[in-house]
Amino acid sequence: MSDTSRELRVGQVGYAFMGAAHSQAWRTAPSFFDLPLKPRLTALCGRDASAAGVVAERFGWESVETDWHALIERDDIDLIDICTPGSTHVEIAVAALRAGKHVLCEKPLANTVEEAEQMAAAAAEAATHGVFAMVGFTYRRTPALSLARQLVRAGRLGTIRHVRAHYLQDWLVDPDSPLTWRLDKSLAGSGALGDIGAHIVDAAQFITDSWITSVSGVMQTFVDSRPIAGEHSTLGGSGAANGERGPVTVDDAAAFTARFDNGALGIFEATRFATGRKNALRIEISGSGGALAFDFEEMNILNLYDASEPAETAGFRRIVVTEPSHPYAAAWWPPGHGLGYEHGFTHQVVDIVNAIASGEQPTPSFADGLAVQRVLAAVEASSDDDSRQQKVPHDSAPVGAGTPATPQGEAS
Amino acid sequence: MSDTSRELRVGQVGYAFMGAAHSQAWRTAPSFFDLPLKPRLTALCGRDASAAGVVAERFGWESVETDWHALIERDDIDLIDICTPGSTHVEIAVAALRAGKHVLCEKPLANTVEEAEQMAAAAAEAATHGVFAMVGFTYRRTPALSLARQLVRAGRLGTIRHVRAHYLQDWLVDPDSPLTWRLDKSLAGSGALGDIGAHIVDAAQFITDSWITSVSGVMQTFVDSRPIAGEHSTLGGSGAANGERGPVTVDDAAAFTARFDNGALGIFEATRFATGRKNALRIEISGSGGALAFDFEEMNILNLYDASEPAETAGFRRIVVTEPSHPYAAAWWPPGHGLGYEHGFTHQVVDIVNAIASGEQPTPSFADGLAVQRVLAAVEASSDDDSRQQKVPHDSAPVGAGTPATPQGEAS
Amino acid sequence: MSDTSRELRVGQVGYAFMGAAHSQAWRTAPSFFDLPLKPRLTALCGRDASAAGVVAERFGWESVETDWHALIERDDIDLIDICTPGSTHVEIAVAALRAGKHVLCEKPLANTVEEAEQMAAAAAEAATHGVFAMVGFTYRRTPALSLARQLVRAGRLGTIRHVRAHYLQDWLVDPDSPLTWRLDKSLAGSGALGDIGAHIVDAAQFITDSWITSVSGVMQTFVDSRPIAGEHSTLGGSGAANGERGPVTVDDAAAFTARFDNGALGIFEATRFATGRKNALRIEISGSGGALAFDFEEMNILNLYDASEPAETAGFRRIVVTEPSHPYAAAWWPPGHGLGYEHGFTHQVVDIVNAIASGEQPTPSFADGLAVQRVLAAVEASSDDDSRQQKVPHDSAPVGAGTPATPQGEAS
Amino acid sequence: MSDTSRELRVGQVGYAFMGAAHSQAWRTAPSFFDLPLKPRLTALCGRDASAAGVVAERFGWESVETDWHALIERDDIDLIDICTPGSTHVEIAVAALRAGKHVLCEKPLANTVEEAEQMAAAAAEAATHGVFAMVGFTYRRTPALSLARQLVRAGRLGTIRHVRAHYLQDWLVDPDSPLTWRLDKSLAGSGALGDIGAHIVDAAQFITDSWITSVSGVMQTFVDSRPIAGEHSTLGGSGAANGERGPVTVDDAAAFTARFDNGALGIFEATRFATGRKNALRIEISGSGGALAFDFEEMNILNLYDASEPAETAGFRRIVVTEPSHPYAAAWWPPGHGLGYEHGFTHQVVDIVNAIASGEQPTPSFADGLAVQRVLAAVEASSDDDSRQQKVPHDSAPVGAGTPATPQGEAS
Repeated sequence: MSDTSRELRVGQVGYAFMGAAHSQAWRTAPSFFDLPLKPRLTALCGRDASAAGVVAERFGWESVETDWHALIERDDIDLIDICTPGSTHVEIAVAALRAGKHVLCEKPLANTVEEAEQMAAAAAEAATHGVFAMVGFTYRRTPALSLARQLVRAGRLGTIRHVRAHYLQDWLVDPDSPLTWRLDKSLAGSGALGDIGAHIVDAAQFITDSWITSVSGVMQTFVDSRPIAGEHSTLGGSGAANGERGPVTVDDAAAFTARFDNGALGIFEATRFATGRKNALRIEISGSGGALAFDFEEMNILNLYDASEPAETAGFRRIVVTEPSHPYAAAWWPPGHGLGYEHGFTHQVVDIVNAIASGEQPTPSFADGLAVQRVLAAVEASSDDDSRQQKVPHDSAPVGAGTPATPQGEAS
Repeated sequence: MSDTSRELRVGQVGYAFMGAAHSQAWRTAPSFFDLPLKPRLTALCGRDASAAGVVAERFGWESVETDWHALIERDDIDLIDICTPGSTHVEIAVAALRAGKHVLCEKPLANTVEEAEQMAAAAAEAATHGVFAMVGFTYRRTPALSLARQLVRAGRLGTIRHVRAHYLQDWLVDPDSPLTWRLDKSLAGSGALGDIGAHIVDAAQFITDSWITSVSGVMQTFVDSRPIAGEHSTLGGSGAANGERGPVTVDDAAAFTARFDNGALGIFEATRFATGRKNALRIEISGSGGALAFDFEEMNILNLYDASEPAETAGFRRIVVTEPSHPYAAAWWPPGHGLGYEHGFTHQVVDIVNAIASGEQPTPSFADGLAVQRVLAAVEASSDDDSRQQKVPHDSAPVGAGTPATPQGEAS
Repeated sequence: MSDTSRELRVGQVGYAFMGAAHSQAWRTAPSFFDLPLKPRLTALCGRDASAAGVVAERFGWESVETDWHALIERDDIDLIDICTPGSTHVEIAVAALRAGKHVLCEKPLANTVEEAEQMAAAAAEAATHGVFAMVGFTYRRTPALSLARQLVRAGRLGTIRHVRAHYLQDWLVDPDSPLTWRLDKSLAGSGALGDIGAHIVDAAQFITDSWITSVSGVMQTFVDSRPIAGEHSTLGGSGAANGERGPVTVDDAAAFTARFDNGALGIFEATRFATGRKNALRIEISGSGGALAFDFEEMNILNLYDASEPAETAGFRRIVVTEPSHPYAAAWWPPGHGLGYEHGFTHQVVDIVNAIASGEQPTPSFADGLAVQRVLAAVEASSDDDSRQQKVPHDSAPVGAGTPATPQGEAS
Repeated sequence: MSDTSRELRVGQVGYAFMGAAHSQAWRTAPSFFDLPLKPRLTALCGRDASAAGVVAERFGWESVETDWHALIERDDIDLIDICTPGSTHVEIAVAALRAGKHVLCEKPLANTVEEAEQMAAAAAEAATHGVFAMVGFTYRRTPALSLARQLVRAGRLGTIRHVRAHYLQDWLVDPDSPLTWRLDKSLAGSGALGDIGAHIVDAAQFITDSWITSVSGVMQTFVDSRPIAGEHSTLGGSGAANGERGPVTVDDAAAFTARFDNGALGIFEATRFATGRKNALRIEISGSGGALAFDFEEMNILNLYDASEPAETAGFRRIVVTEPSHPYAAAWWPPGHGLGYEHGFTHQVVDIVNAIASGEQPTPSFADGLAVQRVLAAVEASSDDDSRQQKVPHDSAPVGAGTPATPQGEAS
């Protein structure tokens, strides 16, 4: 029990929505998966000690910190898990890496390309000392999307022709829904584009194992002011309000076309105004040998079309991704007993723990996160330049260089 | 044009819902299919000369008769198409067959087993002279269901274990929806059971190529009186009505379990009280080698599960049944351009014309219709006897003896 | 019968895929709908007299012409129906209008904006004499899409925010599928963009009652040469071929973002490389008050989300668009007995006949067709200019000025 | 922390599939829900100390017992959670209740009606002392099914006419899949009927708030012998095996019709031979005012048809049951971030803890479990008597007497 060499002692910054998802994941992963290191919920960090304490109590964090600097200085912490708004990522992550802590950082990696570049550089430097960083694109760990990538890598889709990806939410349709930090550019970096567009950019690059090389985009803010929520505002108590409205400084929606380095044509949309769609991350990929279609509203299903089937009996197969041979699935329940949203976070823990234990770079790396950031920045630049196509620079090897560790179910 | 030896001269009795569907089919079939005999819309027969005349004009019938006896006596008619209520079938069909006319008769074949037996006997006798009879279970001719049968016959499902079939409508949910002939046992024979239950019994036997050998059933009338519709009533002008209600003498719903001679277990439900379901003929068949699922609300789709696929990529395939290699489909539009309800009637014309031209028994024969009738009668008997299992007698070869003629797309 | 003042005598040019669809529609419309003028299938025109004769015989055309000039000169023709490739539209349509014939012209209206402008001008001129022209965007007449427009016009969607439209086919995925006239820019004008992209542009403008004002696009040809089909080629006998390949001169796929004059953001994709998608015309529209979603693979269904429902029971409603109160539906079958692809053509006949009889402009007019053409041209221009946003010029009143005549089922 | 009066100290018997689900639930419930008592994972009991120890370590159980008698005798245990095969339920549950422990017992309540009656009697007696028992029909706690019941109770369905319920699995399709305790009547009581049929019987009675009063059934064993699995057999090491097969003594499938005391007609099917269906618990309920449809393969969705909507816009609404106002949902993630199979167990913990804390009978009670058992027994009796209808006796008030405690989201 006290053999801390077999533990991975975690310090987590942030305790809200993402904080709860991560807490549950740290605790749950070792119950269902055989892990080489046992995560220990050593410290939870939040500026409000009392609120953080409540969450710590609920999930079993052993201690509470109110200053992330202090957290990083603790020598009983091996990994810093960053669940705070994007504006804080660069400072915390770089400091943690320099202090020799592994880092798991929520997406988007940063609010600007410059910040992301700093972080990627710090991560590259740290990796030379066996200290690793990973960015939290958890949708990759939805078994259906992990399976999608496996099928593409196994050649089942042949040459990829098309990516069509939508991430549709509707929580801003009401013009009187309140201003939150997610609508403030200085905190969130961008709106729908960075928050949910980032996920479909990563998912597309992950599944197809190919970079986006250029984009042409449009962005739009449909409702440009919203009620200030008052003291209880998640903006941080920025003053009381009586019907007062503040400016929305990020995009409500973004859409763009894209070209991939494998020659595929992409079409992307991210919006918080897709009335009736709650969290519809949809992605369809068409190739010369087949196609894949996914919708997070049916997260346990992957639809596969195999073009080699005779026309008579060809059709999209509705695969219920809960078989023991499916990624991550053997650790859970019998076939047909589906998983939920939070399981992706547990799988993320599994993958980072396995990578750290084996001294390998976990994916998606900060370099992968930077690659996504550059796509987002190019969309913004294009949108600001009459939608003119913008090239997306990239450094090196394609994103597929680092395969996700899915020991429970890699396709043969 | 005047080579009547290459024509099939049709006399149709009845001009309402079914009459229109049949008229359109007789006219449309030769436009899209190569037929050995060209149907000629020679005479339309209805008691109301004026109403029949309007329909005749609309669809291009060359003449009108008001008495079916006169129609049958005409020597310029080769085939009698019976689209009237079930109570009239036996008399018209037997007389027509004796007069040497081919007969196409709407389902259910008759209102009682006794009538159906008379008809089957008359049909067997006529067949010895090359005069043929067929019963109109048109759903067989939905391409997806024809394909289902082909797949079963090709062994894709292995040993059949289960049939689950529902035919769900909701047009009687409103207790004040009016009394029609379909709710009068003396005219309709039975209610949901005979009207729509007959279709799923036929479809199940057709697809699985197996007889139902015993049943255990329940029947129910939820609303036992309904407003008499007055002069315009389809009950035949049975007197005006002011809030007057008449008795419903048929079942609103029927459900039964069944055993097939191939060892499969069946479960069937036919109802006019399935709120929100307009015409949901659903059938799912499970076998040791695979499964099929169909819902008429998506009539151009057949779902196929192939159990020989690796678990990793197995799933129900959503086949869009519009490929040139699919039954009947090559005659119509490019892939993905779906067909509608009425196309089954056109296919029925194609099949009966091809069978007659080649001197072969069209299917489903009156014997097949009788087999369905016996299942329905056994359900009623079981329902009347505390749901005790009733054996279903049958004469001879399984229903599969006569394959449907589908020259446009038999699976290899 | 001989009262030709109550007839609409039709001369149709072209007899292939579209020719068959139109023939069946002209013949079927008066059988199911009460029309003020009865269409008469007076003459079918095709360069190959023998082939045209076969089709004429099949559908009941009274005569055959081999030269469209001769057809137009006939004084027993009231309307010219143009079902030939886009390159021929301008010449035939303008001549016909000048000859005082009404015109129904298949989409896209023309191969270039210039041609479309000529046609729109000719139509405007003719309209002053009570001679009308209409372009064949038949998908408007799918009952579900007509209902979509009615719901938008009734305000059920509030302010429109988003249009997402895909038209997905896969018939070119095989690189050895042959060259046809549809892949030759000189005949077809463009590829996926003009052939199927045109439909979703029209559908989007029709349903939302709003113009597209700017676009930013990309176009791509994935397979740039294909086998020449030989003598039987639909390219018109352009020489035999043994493994010879010819150039594909049109786009295989096009994608673009768009802005509408009502402030909505659009995203469009048209492709013949969407593996596994046979004819998936999908459109989803999000508004402040609700949303609509449609997929032609389920053509009888419209999904409606009403944002005014309590969150607890809100959800996309799957409307089976076969109720008597639905557009066009009362003329057909009982609820749940779905229609097929070709019914849109019958509805098109119904609408143009009603408009002509009442002396009103049918819709979509040539001006509407020109508006679509301008969008397509702007997409091409943007694609040629690094996807830079292109403004789409338009003349006048929004497309909604002319409501479709749907006497069988306008929403109250 | 040491205030054990605010704790609920749990002793769980069994640590396999169900044991893991329950362990995760006991630990997770207080992290996401505000509970009046904090569950404490005091002791895990299993005959194999080593195996139980591994599971205890994984989930944080504080101690291990190998004999359930010892567990019951411990005075630091408040509740016994029984996750063992049905044959053991009666003995453990009765002893635990007599020892003053609350009991949560997995379904089916028992292997026979007689055992279930003993248990219900013991529970009734215990309840008089404030000691409560509950049976684990967790599917009730799927938010979509809890919502279904709320909607029925709110009158949204009017008079219930139909229940159609299928529970479809396919894990026995392969005739060489091994013999397990679930196929041994002496351990499992029955096969598909008791294992999964029990769930749909409970769900149907729960949602409709009505008892099943009579049934007519058939049961079938398709494959009557299977390979003995050898030492590792879950049958408990009952001898090694080389190709040896043992008898299957339970049903592979069961189907039955049913009548409810509210006049509804039911049709039920439970099978392990529904090829391609992994865990498809499907239930559709039709009423005079609306209908509901659910399929566990889309567990976060409830489909609602409201018959009071105008026909034009009526349709099944696809409700994504993840809104804060939905049962249990506010405790979890934002809308659209779906739950998985195991969440039902967490909700079960929430409900039993709340009930115990407030001194109220949790539901489903053992009396409710007995009611289900009586339905299953009647199905067996009917199957043994030629499917003759069997009455289902019941004691008292309808199952709806005890409402589930869903403090997080009762519909207003």
